[in-house]
Amino acid sequence: MQKRDATCAVIGAGDYIGAEIAKKFAAEGFTVFAGRRNGEKLEPLVKEVEASGGTIFARSLDARKEDEVTAFLHDADRHAPLDICIFNVGANVNFPILETTDRVFRKVWEMACWAGFVSGREAARLMLPRGQGNIFFTGATASLRGGSGYAAFASAKFGLRAVAQAMARELGPKNIHVAHLIIDAGVDTAWVRERREKLWGKEALDNPDLLMPPASVAASYWQLYQQPKSAWTFELEIRPFGEKW
Amino acid sequence: MQKRDATCAVIGAGDYIGAEIAKKFAAEGFTVFAGRRNGEKLEPLVKEVEASGGTIFARSLDARKEDEVTAFLHDADRHAPLDICIFNVGANVNFPILETTDRVFRKVWEMACWAGFVSGREAARLMLPRGQGNIFFTGATASLRGGSGYAAFASAKFGLRAVAQAMARELGPKNIHVAHLIIDAGVDTAWVRERREKLWGKEALDNPDLLMPPASVAASYWQLYQQPKSAWTFELEIRPFGEKW
Amino acid sequence: MQKRDATCAVIGAGDYIGAEIAKKFAAEGFTVFAGRRNGEKLEPLVKEVEASGGTIFARSLDARKEDEVTAFLHDADRHAPLDICIFNVGANVNFPILETTDRVFRKVWEMACWAGFVSGREAARLMLPRGQGNIFFTGATASLRGGSGYAAFASAKFGLRAVAQAMARELGPKNIHVAHLIIDAGVDTAWVRERREKLWGKEALDNPDLLMPPASVAASYWQLYQQPKSAWTFELEIRPFGEKW
Amino acid sequence: MQKRDATCAVIGAGDYIGAEIAKKFAAEGFTVFAGRRNGEKLEPLVKEVEASGGTIFARSLDARKEDEVTAFLHDADRHAPLDICIFNVGANVNFPILETTDRVFRKVWEMACWAGFVSGREAARLMLPRGQGNIFFTGATASLRGGSGYAAFASAKFGLRAVAQAMARELGPKNIHVAHLIIDAGVDTAWVRERREKLWGKEALDNPDLLMPPASVAASYWQLYQQPKSAWTFELEIRPFGEKW
Repeated sequence: MQKRDATCAVIGAGDYIGAEIAKKFAAEGFTVFAGRRNGEKLEPLVKEVEASGGTIFARSLDARKEDEVTAFLHDADRHAPLDICIFNVGANVNFPILETTDRVFRKVWEMACWAGFVSGREAARLMLPRGQGNIFFTGATASLRGGSGYAAFASAKFGLRAVAQAMARELGPKNIHVAHLIIDAGVDTAWVRERREKLWGKEALDNPDLLMPPASVAASYWQLYQQPKSAWTFELEIRPFGEKW
Repeated sequence: MQKRDATCAVIGAGDYIGAEIAKKFAAEGFTVFAGRRNGEKLEPLVKEVEASGGTIFARSLDARKEDEVTAFLHDADRHAPLDICIFNVGANVNFPILETTDRVFRKVWEMACWAGFVSGREAARLMLPRGQGNIFFTGATASLRGGSGYAAFASAKFGLRAVAQAMARELGPKNIHVAHLIIDAGVDTAWVRERREKLWGKEALDNPDLLMPPASVAASYWQLYQQPKSAWTFELEIRPFGEKW
Repeated sequence: MQKRDATCAVIGAGDYIGAEIAKKFAAEGFTVFAGRRNGEKLEPLVKEVEASGGTIFARSLDARKEDEVTAFLHDADRHAPLDICIFNVGANVNFPILETTDRVFRKVWEMACWAGFVSGREAARLMLPRGQGNIFFTGATASLRGGSGYAAFASAKFGLRAVAQAMARELGPKNIHVAHLIIDAGVDTAWVRERREKLWGKEALDNPDLLMPPASVAASYWQLYQQPKSAWTFELEIRPFGEKW
Repeated sequence: MQKRDATCAVIGAGDYIGAEIAKKFAAEGFTVFAGRRNGEKLEPLVKEVEASGGTIFARSLDARKEDEVTAFLHDADRHAPLDICIFNVGANVNFPILETTDRVFRKVWEMACWAGFVSGREAARLMLPRGQGNIFFTGATASLRGGSGYAAFASAKFGLRAVAQAMARELGPKNIHVAHLIIDAGVDTAWVRERREKLWGKEALDNPDLLMPPASVAASYWQLYQQPKSAWTFELEIRPFGEKW
């Protein structure tokens, strides 16, 4: 593995997509900074990356705290220039409108939208003086569609998409690639499998074409990263081939 | 004027669109409840509506306070059944991403998105037991496009649109018409005129076709209200005929 | 009924939406010109309109013939200035891609897209010298979504929408209101009822909230017509309140 | 170069994008079939590909002829299984609506939409029995926006996008990747340079960030081809980093 003098920060390095992104960029030679609420849960990821010869730092990070996000990114940037920042915090909830409390609405927004804004802004602050960088955001079906029961989640994801658009339009001409990757299907996680089984029965799991392996999602981030600046994509929608849309 | 046993609540009854909406619905016989930050500024509106034989109540209302919004709507509903709730709070700001502070981002969201969510939810709570009602939200160009410098404003407006969509999908089948009206141009206000003159010079004001009179906007709300439930519109985009798009 | 010195042309004056549009504009005092493939089928419509004191002319019209469309509109304009032209030709078909023949693809396009282009262009030719007019197009769910089996129909409806957009952008600043009305549900016609019963059984017809009465659709055209030029809508989507979307 | 037992067909193998796509897939080991109106103009491309050790066949092809398209694809498939078909015919014209003749409107549609439908359908016919394949279409800004003067071109490009969507929804679950690549900027060609210079003066050419090199566009097709079927993208929008959007 050819090491690079460049850091990849993953905010919201959960067990699935976030972890795969971390592994992919580590495998490509980046120093990876992985942050999630309970940093100790990152231990298996750290072991796996290091076993493959990669460099990774795990941090406990509450993305709803401005100073923690700022410190995390500055810390990352001190190891090697921050070249790519990926915001991957999720907060999928579903409540009827009358049962959506202020607390839920606000918390979902702070996690899925506000934290993305702060992460993007602080990453830009580090990248702009060097005149290059990449800031990618993870979107969902709810980034494009406010479904019944999704007032809180869709509102936050719509809001995050607007942040990404505004940043892309302002920072693109300054050579910072801002992108928004919409995952339009369930990712293959224990939680999704459980929910699908509950909703549709065991047979819903028999069709492997309806779930996206996290590694396939990570591959899309890598494709976005590789695009030449003369042909950047702002928004990428991905779904497994068996998915209805 | 034929009085109706029905209330129209306007949250964000500013000098222009909000005031025209209030006048229109008062003229159609609704009891109007008009709320804005400084209720005393509503005095001219109250006088005008009452001089025309309309019924209007003005209230000071901080839409960022859940209890104030709830009290306002319940108060309105006590006078006559709440038939229509219009959320019209604006919060248009423009800052480069690095200068967009947490404070700005959060406040714009609380005004333009969170307050809309609470207003819609509480209106729905009053309407659902009666099995009818109307909840309309005011959108803007920034509801569809995150322009450079609009991370805060567009994020909030995107978020509000998602709230409206989720509510429309949940509440439409329960006979509550939820709609989102996108104003895709400057409304003819002192503030917009001043900004345009500064940006483009005096001649920018010579073309009357580029600014929307607030009364034309209010007419669109009235059209939405009149739609039969067999052919509802969720989203209505309006712009003056001279506007580029 | 107050007669107007103005003509409304309806191209594609079928038994349902087209007929209701014709009735509505006749009732508002317009001289109506109604064209459809077999003009003799317009006889009941003519009788009904005339019984109500309206003025209507029925014509056999093959909208796929440029000279016929041109003659129809010029003829209409000779009776009274052409104030509004409504293009309402449908061509809904569904075929798997391999079974979609050149003949079908071409014919659907000629009916649903090409004829709309010619109708709009010739209407504009008559309206531009007078500096005013209205050109409305009927869209469908397939105007926004190319569903499986709809390569031909959606392609034509997408194409018609582009024509409407291009015309709106060119002609709006010249005071011609170009609009596109998307009907996002089945209209309550014998054909739709029959198809639904076949697909979902008799109970699918029990929910009256899922079908739009043609008169409600016509009411939307009338609303669009009434909009002041300072707040025009280009695109209006309508659906019955029970419809999933 | 590792040769593959697979053919890539390029319909509309013009001097720029089409040629670069052909070179890229040839370099990846595909047998390339390149078709354009005047096949003799493909000679330099053939020489270049063959000099690099690639395999390419050049054909004169009028994409507006159903039998020629069919023969071209069957011919390609006989050399090696048709694995990817790329439809890249352009037809960019701009006319005011009154000057858009039937002849122009029809010809642009036949080139940019109808030919795409036939190409996609015939490619699918060859791919379906093998249960795999890729069908990619080239879109443009006009695929999403009907600008003033673009009634003909946008109508055709909207229509092509609908064909692509309908095919993706029908064929995706059958393991055929259908994608639509939107080029949202001028590609760096002699023609575009000339037009820009005429419109905006020589200095408009000084900013290299506003034009996309054809090779960058070709790279995007290659990325789409490489996506695993568990995370396919239907639509990819690309633009150079200096482009306003």
